[in-house]
Formats: sequence, C-alpha cells, structure tokens
Amino acid sequence: MMMMLDTLRRFWGRKMLYRMKISLVLQILIGCINTKAQANSFYNHVSQILKYCNSRCLAVVPQGGNTGLVGGSVPVFDEVIVSLSSMNNIISFDKVSGILVCEAGCILENIMSFLDNEGFIMPLDLGAKGSCQIGGNVSTNAGGLRLVRYGSLHGNVLGVEAVLANGTVLDMLKTLRKDNTGYDLKHLFIGSEGSLGIVTKVSILTPPKLSSVNVALLACKDYSCCQKLLQEAKRKLGEILSAFEFLDGQSMDLVTNHLEGARNPFSTSHHNFYVLIETTGSDESSDKQKLEAFLLGSMENELIADGVLAQDINQASTFWRIREGISEALMKAGAVYKYDVSIPVENLYNLVEEMRSRLGDAANVIGYGHLGDGNLHLNVSVSQYDEKILSQIEPFVYEWTSKKRGSISAEHGVGLMKANEIFYSQSHETVQMMASIKNLMDPNHILNPYKVLPHSITS
Amino acid sequence: MMMMLDTLRRFWGRKMLYRMKISLVLQILIGCINTKAQANSFYNHVSQILKYCNSRCLAVVPQGGNTGLVGGSVPVFDEVIVSLSSMNNIISFDKVSGILVCEAGCILENIMSFLDNEGFIMPLDLGAKGSCQIGGNVSTNAGGLRLVRYGSLHGNVLGVEAVLANGTVLDMLKTLRKDNTGYDLKHLFIGSEGSLGIVTKVSILTPPKLSSVNVALLACKDYSCCQKLLQEAKRKLGEILSAFEFLDGQSMDLVTNHLEGARNPFSTSHHNFYVLIETTGSDESSDKQKLEAFLLGSMENELIADGVLAQDINQASTFWRIREGISEALMKAGAVYKYDVSIPVENLYNLVEEMRSRLGDAANVIGYGHLGDGNLHLNVSVSQYDEKILSQIEPFVYEWTSKKRGSISAEHGVGLMKANEIFYSQSHETVQMMASIKNLMDPNHILNPYKVLPHSITS
Repeated sequence: MMMMLDTLRRFWGRKMLYRMKISLVLQILIGCINTKAQANSFYNHVSQILKYCNSRCLAVVPQGGNTGLVGGSVPVFDEVIVSLSSMNNIISFDKVSGILVCEAGCILENIMSFLDNEGFIMPLDLGAKGSCQIGGNVSTNAGGLRLVRYGSLHGNVLGVEAVLANGTVLDMLKTLRKDNTGYDLKHLFIGSEGSLGIVTKVSILTPPKLSSVNVALLACKDYSCCQKLLQEAKRKLGEILSAFEFLDGQSMDLVTNHLEGARNPFSTSHHNFYVLIETTGSDESSDKQKLEAFLLGSMENELIADGVLAQDINQASTFWRIREGISEALMKAGAVYKYDVSIPVENLYNLVEEMRSRLGDAANVIGYGHLGDGNLHLNVSVSQYDEKILSQIEPFVYEWTSKKRGSISAEHGVGLMKANEIFYSQSHETVQMMASIKNLMDPNHILNPYKVLPHSITS
Repeated sequence: MMMMLDTLRRFWGRKMLYRMKISLVLQILIGCINTKAQANSFYNHVSQILKYCNSRCLAVVPQGGNTGLVGGSVPVFDEVIVSLSSMNNIISFDKVSGILVCEAGCILENIMSFLDNEGFIMPLDLGAKGSCQIGGNVSTNAGGLRLVRYGSLHGNVLGVEAVLANGTVLDMLKTLRKDNTGYDLKHLFIGSEGSLGIVTKVSILTPPKLSSVNVALLACKDYSCCQKLLQEAKRKLGEILSAFEFLDGQSMDLVTNHLEGARNPFSTSHHNFYVLIETTGSDESSDKQKLEAFLLGSMENELIADGVLAQDINQASTFWRIREGISEALMKAGAVYKYDVSIPVENLYNLVEEMRSRLGDAANVIGYGHLGDGNLHLNVSVSQYDEKILSQIEPFVYEWTSKKRGSISAEHGVGLMKANEIFYSQSHETVQMMASIKNLMDPNHILNPYKVLPHSITS
C-alpha cells in the first residue's frame, strides 16, 4: 500500500502541482486492506496511513459524507483524501444508559434507523442525514434541528477515538456520562473539522424515543411576534419543546414555487413569517392538551395570525418538508450566496432586512433557521454569481455579525471558505492559541491544510 | 503590589521551603487594587498577577469557594493563592435566550436566587451551593443533581474568559448557543482545575423555571430493582425527570443516626435501597398524573416496595435533606475514605458489595449517588484513619473501576489526591497529550502545580 501511495503521489505531484483537485480516495486502499483485516481494526489503517503521510509531508483531507457547506471536506491542491465510509459498523449499544458506540463512517440516517428499533433517537437531526456521517457530524460539531432540546454535540458525545497526524491513536472512547480525569481532550476534535486528528469512533448519549410527537405550523405577522412566541413556547411547552424553526414569507414562496408537491397550508397564501414547532413527550393526551392551550393563548395574544396542527405523521412530514426543503429550493432557483450566522435573537432578523435594502431588486434575500438557537440561515438568491453583488454582501455580513458579537459560522464550520474571516468572531489571542495547538498536534500541517485557521497565521 | 509579593515570597520561601502550606490570599491584594479600579476590570488584575508570577516562576493556586474534595484548590508548598471571591458581579442576563454572564467568584446559590427572581434556574445544583463559586464549578466541571436532565457544563457553558499563565486574556465569552468558528478552546478550561488558565468570567445557558416540581422517595428491595426503575423512569417520565438519586440502607441509617432532625419516612424502618426521584415540568396536573401512574405501575411490577410522594415543598426538602445530608453525616460519624466513580449502571453497586466483603467489620461501607448518570459515591466510614484499611481499599478500588472501563473520578476531579492515579482511567497517549498541552499553555508550570497530571509525566 505504501508503495502504491508513493507512486500515486509522484504521479499526481507531477501532473497537478498547483490548484488542481485530485480524488485519490484512500477508501479504496482501506477497502483493499480490509479483505485481510478485522472490521474493528480499521483505525489501525488510518493510523498507518497518517504515519506514512506525516513522514513524507503528504497533506490529507479526512472525508465523511462530504455534505459540508464550507469546503471543509474537499481537497484544495494535491491532498490525499482519507474517506471513512467503510468504517460503518455499530460497535455496541447499551439500552440501560442509551449509549451508542459506532465507527465514524456510519451514515446518520442508518444510526437513526438502528436506534428507532431499539426505542431510542439520535440527539442530532439535520437535512443531510441521508448521506452525512457521524464522524463528519462530530468533526464539524453539526447543530441541526434538535439542538434546542438536546443541546450540542459537546454535551452529547461521550467519547471519541481519534488518530493524530503522526499516527498516534488517542483512545478517549468513554461510555460514561461523567468523567473528570484530566483535560477532556475529545472536545478538541469536536468541531475542528479534521484539522487536529481524524475521528475514527464515536460514543454518544441517545435519548429514549418518546411516544408523542406533535408538529404545528404557525403564521406570524412580524418578527417581533416570532420572538415573543419563542419565549412563550419555552415557558409553556417547556420540557416537551423539541424544535422551534422559523422561515420568512420569501422562504415559503421559494419552496412552494420550486419544490414539487410543496404547498402553503394556509388559506391566506401569504404571511410575513412562519414558525414550525415540534413537541416530543411521553404522554399523547397531556402533550396535545398543552400544545393546544399554548396555541389558543398565542392566538388570543395575537402572537400568531393563523396556525395548523398536523393531524397525522404525513401532514407533519409535509410541514417539515417545507422547512427542510428550503435549501433544495434555493439550488433550483439559481445561484445562491449562503450564510449561517448566530446573532442574539432580538437582532437576528435585522440582518435580513438590512441586506434586502442593500441589494434592492438585484437579489432575493431570504431568512430562515433555528430561531430557538439564535441561528439564522441568510441566503441571497440570484440568477447568476456576480462579483458586484458579492462585494455588496461581503464583508458587510461579517462586519454586521461581528458588531453584534455574533458568530459568522453558527453550525456549518469554517472550512476553506471562511478560514480567513475567523477574526470577525474570534479574538486575535484566541486564534493564536488555536494555531499553537494546531502546531503542537500536527506540526507538519498535513491534516486538512488551508482550512479552519487563516492563511495569515498558519503560513 | 509587586514589591509586596516579592517580599512575601522571600519571607515564605525562607520560612517554609517544603511541605508547608501558606495562605497568601491574593484576594486581599485584589481588594486593595479594587478601591481604585472598575469592578469589570478585575481580570486585568488577574492578568497582571499571573504575568508577574510567571516572570518570576512563582507558583499559583486559583481558588474559588474551596469546596473541592480532591485538594485541587489548596496550596501544596509555597504557592500563591489567587482567590476569585471578589469577582462576584452578575454582568448581564438575557431573558429571551436565558443566557447569564457573570464573574467567576459568584457563589452558585446567589446566582440561583438571582435567576429565581427572573423565572429561570441554573442547570447545575450541588450540595456545596452555599459556598462554591461558578468559576470553580466550571474549572472542575462540577456535575451534581441536575445533570441527568440538563447535561454537563460542557453543554451548558457557552463561553468563558480565561487568563493564561503568561497573563494573556482569552476572551471566549460568547453568548451564543452555536458558534463553529475554529477550535472551541473554552472546553480546555472546563474541568482542567485551573491548571491551564484562570477562569474569570462565565456565560451560561439557563433553562426557564417550570412551575411544577414533584419529589418522591421510593424503597427498593434490591439493586436490580433500582436499575429497572431507572429504565422505566427514563421512558415513562421522560422529559420531566429531573433527578434520579439512590442511596443504600446503610446511607439511610447513617443519616438518621447522625443528622439532627433527619428521619426515615417509611413505617418499615429498613429497606435495602432508596431512590429519590424528582420531576420538573410545566403542568402541575399532568405531571402529577404521570408520576402517579409511574409509581402505581412500579408498585404493580414490584420494582418498588414502598413509596412516599412529597405533599408539599417542606416534605420535598426533607427528602432532599436525606440525600444531600449523607456527606455531612459521614463527617460526623468519624473518619471517611471518599471515592467518586463512574461505572456502567449494571455493575455499579457490585463495587460497594465487594468492598464490604473485603473490609468486613472493620468499616462501614456505604454507596449512594447519581444513578441516572452512572455515578457512585463510595464511602468507607471508619472510627479513625488507618493505613492498613487504606491499603485494602487502594489500589483495589481503582483497579476494579479501571477493569470496568469506568472513571476513577466522575465529578470531583483529579486535583492533588488522584493525579497519580489518572492512568487507571486514561491511556498513556492521552495523558501524554494532556501534558503537551500543559507545557504549551503554561510552560513554567506555575498554574496549580502538582495537580491533575501525574508526577511521572510532569517532572
């Protein structure tokens, strides 16, 4: 295998020295080795590959489902891709504690199906679940739809096994809810986008599947109502609230215009804002009662202009399809500039409005996202990419977010596309410390180069 | 101030060179400076102190409420104590998001009172709340009574401000639920017991206070019933379960014998095990109904032998007093060897039984803790400390825990007392990486020396 790698490296090295993407997918190589090896010793292969690459200063891109939105899992020049797809075994599941241990290449939706049979759910759900992998989810600290209820992966991931650039395997694959023995280094691998090590196994706490799930789609006349509704929902629905998503009228129009079969369920076809609320609880009748009382109260207080409570799982799916389909509808509508920001809830929608007035008729600016987490997906839909429009969007969007002490990447990560923008959300001292840790853990900078950290600090 | 420090250092250096504890509490010095300074610039003082100490290689012990149980906040030789007690301001609270920002020296109970007035609660509660400080809680990654519901501080702490050994201030004081811009370095300060930096400010996500709280004390005939009860509670009480604590009959006897006013609420005075269940929800009647149905079902399935549902807040307090009073009762009963381990729930109580049979009549071995988190507090109560008994307990307790892939410190941390035992729960490679990070962030090893990492790796 090592000879094969060397040959390939020389070949590609000559053929495409700069600015060329290659797809030397080491998955194939891992696959070859696997015919002779045990499934659970895959990490040894990752270790061997990294040891070899490190000794020759060959750059490596770890790749999961390759569904990231900031170019974190694609090669830039002549990096070797290490795909984790073949490491897709579930290793163990403890029904008493709800703790699952699996390999990094497990596809999120497959884990969900497995858990469903066991009476549990993943604390993480996102649109890309059909192809994204848990190792990639952990490496990008994926957020998604259930974060408002179950919190981030920093809280739910109990352990990881990670391979360092020099091939050292760090076994931190704990299956314990509590472990205060020294520095909790697994957190360095959660959200570092494969630039400090390759996550090969994951241990995660999964909540029990509860029997009662309700979904309501509500219409609000303005953003202020959405905000107040969120406060009310947190208090009145409290422990059963499992999603609080919002989309503006422009997002709804986009979905109904571009997505086959999607339709606005309200008789009055246009409202300024829509909120999707999901509750998950253990008692059907009391949950429904609680949700109905909340909706009634919100109607009376004029927080909602209209509302539909899904009558069955199919109707619930059509509501979710609207929210989850926005991204697909945007792709169909033309070119799109995508931003994923965290901003304190009270200021969150101002950014959409300001962007709209900046761009005028040149673009369709839409805003949606995880309002319960203060996470806005700001999208600028245009007929085609245009440098002039881009210059009106950036750096404005970053400067605006920075002024509100927001994050220029709430859940998508930094990857290649935002590495040089990191100072909008992090202090110089903090980024300097990140760079020091990168130098410590990957002194040859072979892991996912050109990503996460800005060029100015790594070069 | 700097001269004063130097003089004191020389004085103490001569007087007590080795194995002598000093109490040079820099709080006094900080207090002096404070008369001329703004409250919110305290971190500047911490920065100046550390910069000075670092330049002279003066060792420093950061100290919060000094309530830790493993000697993490006390000096060993001639370290300078930096007390954070005067940094006790609440900086901001956002009622929409429930995000609190405060200084590290705020006492946990004071924060709780503040939040109570705002209609929120802390996601963290522990026996020492009256004196422990939030900076210390974060630095030790305190667990406590609500972890089963709200998760660990790695999930709830949104940001910290920390001062490094060389005086650099890392501003990571985010007030966002989501922020994926680079490595999430705050996690290095959560649970590193002040050995990588001093936490000066904290931002934390707080859940809304829900109106309905119920507490039940249940009796079980054996440990297997406690385990099954936990599984049932997770499924039947699901989202309203906020505590699942257990104690054995010996713990109950200890409390009722040594704690004034404490009494066993059951008519049959001895049961083998007791479980305290708390539910917190948003609807009094449906919560009560749910809990009653759960208790009835558990009676019918013979999981519980007897049970009392608290009728009011006073009775609930007396139940909590039993559980929270065990530690105090142990102190009154004589000398005590304390262990705080995480073990997969199915094996958890075996350790208590094995220890009991090892020690025979020489000691009273009791087991209690946070069963919902797999966290056992194993305590060996003896009339006086005895090397012979200790040699029967250690290293047995660590070896046993290690074999089950448990943690030798679930929530108390490593501190001074368990630094050399860290390999029972962490691999050599992982500890080596911890040491490398320590060397990177605190090259002179001035911060909390002799703690957390083993002597073999730091010397």
